Amino acid sequence: MTEMSRESLTIVDCTLRDGGYHTNWEFGRSLVEEYLAVCPRLGIDVVELGYVRFTANRAGPYGQLPKGLTANLRTALPTDHRLRFAAMVDAEDFACVPGAEAGRRLAEKLATGALPVDVVRIAVRYDKMAAVAEAVAAVRDAGFRVCLNLMQIDLASTREVVQCLAATRDMGSLEALYLADSLGSLTPARTIELVSAFCAGQAAPVGIHAHDNQGLALHNTQVAIETGARWVDGTVHGMGRGAGNTRTEQLLVLLGSGPDELQPLLDLIVRHFHPLMEDYRWGASGLYVLAGLHRIHPTYVQRIERNATLGPEEKLRAMAFLAGSAAHRFTVDTLDYALGSIRD
Amino acid sequence: MTEMSRESLTIVDCTLRDGGYHTNWEFGRSLVEEYLAVCPRLGIDVVELGYVRFTANRAGPYGQLPKGLTANLRTALPTDHRLRFAAMVDAEDFACVPGAEAGRRLAEKLATGALPVDVVRIAVRYDKMAAVAEAVAAVRDAGFRVCLNLMQIDLASTREVVQCLAATRDMGSLEALYLADSLGSLTPARTIELVSAFCAGQAAPVGIHAHDNQGLALHNTQVAIETGARWVDGTVHGMGRGAGNTRTEQLLVLLGSGPDELQPLLDLIVRHFHPLMEDYRWGASGLYVLAGLHRIHPTYVQRIERNATLGPEEKLRAMAFLAGSAAHRFTVDTLDYALGSIRD
Repeated sequence: MTEMSRESLTIVDCTLRDGGYHTNWEFGRSLVEEYLAVCPRLGIDVVELGYVRFTANRAGPYGQLPKGLTANLRTALPTDHRLRFAAMVDAEDFACVPGAEAGRRLAEKLATGALPVDVVRIAVRYDKMAAVAEAVAAVRDAGFRVCLNLMQIDLASTREVVQCLAATRDMGSLEALYLADSLGSLTPARTIELVSAFCAGQAAPVGIHAHDNQGLALHNTQVAIETGARWVDGTVHGMGRGAGNTRTEQLLVLLGSGPDELQPLLDLIVRHFHPLMEDYRWGASGLYVLAGLHRIHPTYVQRIERNATLGPEEKLRAMAFLAGSAAHRFTVDTLDYALGSIRD
Repeated sequence: MTEMSRESLTIVDCTLRDGGYHTNWEFGRSLVEEYLAVCPRLGIDVVELGYVRFTANRAGPYGQLPKGLTANLRTALPTDHRLRFAAMVDAEDFACVPGAEAGRRLAEKLATGALPVDVVRIAVRYDKMAAVAEAVAAVRDAGFRVCLNLMQIDLASTREVVQCLAATRDMGSLEALYLADSLGSLTPARTIELVSAFCAGQAAPVGIHAHDNQGLALHNTQVAIETGARWVDGTVHGMGRGAGNTRTEQLLVLLGSGPDELQPLLDLIVRHFHPLMEDYRWGASGLYVLAGLHRIHPTYVQRIERNATLGPEEKLRAMAFLAGSAAHRFTVDTLDYALGSIRD
């Protein structure tokens, strides 16, 4: 594939949601207003605004939607825009509310914001789908389009993929079913294998949400599209958890956007996102490549990279400990053990 | 293509040469020793050590080979290594020496270094090949294998590509003929078009030297291989001029290397190259994407990005000036005009 036709694709920009892992979901007002003004000019179809949660926590406004969704944002958008808006729910958050009530509660919450969210993306580990089935139905019954983002899907065995797809079929209509490369470990070959299985094994359009630990986010997104994926995620300048995501600007270049079309996005990057990158340092690094290869959860790497007291040798020793610990899930205890291992 | 067979490929790592644009070709002794010790373990075929020049200038040792090639480096290598070594000559440097003497002079120079350079890569703009024909013959006659790296090839029209390939055929045997994406502007479609023409139009193996302005370096390298390219360049952690190059570690992942094989390289990155990246900040940024789209010479961007007195709006205005100036070549005057335009 070279430049790809984009008419058949739904392009989701999830900068505010996935990028929030670096800023604790705080974003400056002018950044968000300029971002929203730019998205319709690029051919973005869906903007994911952040997380919506059933319980209060310490996340900033875009981690607790509809906080942050002010009338100013609505007026920042051109009146004839055709953007749709999405919010993500972490499956574990459904534990805080009876499944049958999830839809109504979400609808009530999101109705108080100034932007009309109609897509709810549920992030769930691929082997935990049974736990969210009731909530999925309730969210759909409340009038939302539901996407499932299957986290850590690269860890799934062939048998587990089959089970997962069977569970999906039992859930009824989905807007999209996503492979989420949470650990940044997908290779192109594995992406093709999984997208093929997802396309063949259920009815919903297949999506890909890639992370860039190994510089393969764009590449995996491209082979996913070639294999039949129709929903694709990007973030501005790649801003996202850990090593970050497929870069929206690069995805658009690949899809044929020219300099004039991209200029407002590149302006936005130079004004707002590159300075953020200088502070938060997402992007492929040696540690993130290691994390991808050993399927280590990205939060370990974010914590280790930001720890100014650690030198390179100490970071490598901590990563070696985690590589030997099947550290797919983040726990503070495991991080403490890993940091303790440095001194052993 | 997914994971690719690598037996048919010649992998060139040109970190010390292309990365030298950031450090003025100064590299610490332990970095180079560890780098050379690691390369044979990765399946790298050729290590490009730096530039060799006919005149003294202000470049550090790896910009003036054989300076820097100490006996220590030789002893850093495992005794059974099968690496070959390359040096690059800038075509403009041939102006300092009669073409017929170029080979003998290079042979004399390089013979005084501790590592046996047998590949000479001549970097020449695609439309200046006539000027180096005599020197190419002389370098080959002196016993070197000669690669031609055709700079800024993306600017060539169809007619110019045809002329360029005809000139190549007249030059006799070449070790490889490279597409060099000097401006970081190649798209996958254009890469396929050019590699196809290069493969069909002359006898030498085709190579690709990619820059990562638009995050497409790895991607372009991959489609080049699929289309028939057999020599591929990478640099450790992407360290190279402007936005940098295809990352050797990511290329190796794509070619099927696993965690154990890559560990020494990732150690090297964490110890040496990631700290350098923190200082020199190569890698895709908004300005480099702009430069790629508008085919602006990377030196402008390096200078603008490093200018601490410029804010984002000023950088954008300077880039807009350069975009309107067909700034494929770097001149200090044009940079001055661009910086002057900020105040107009």
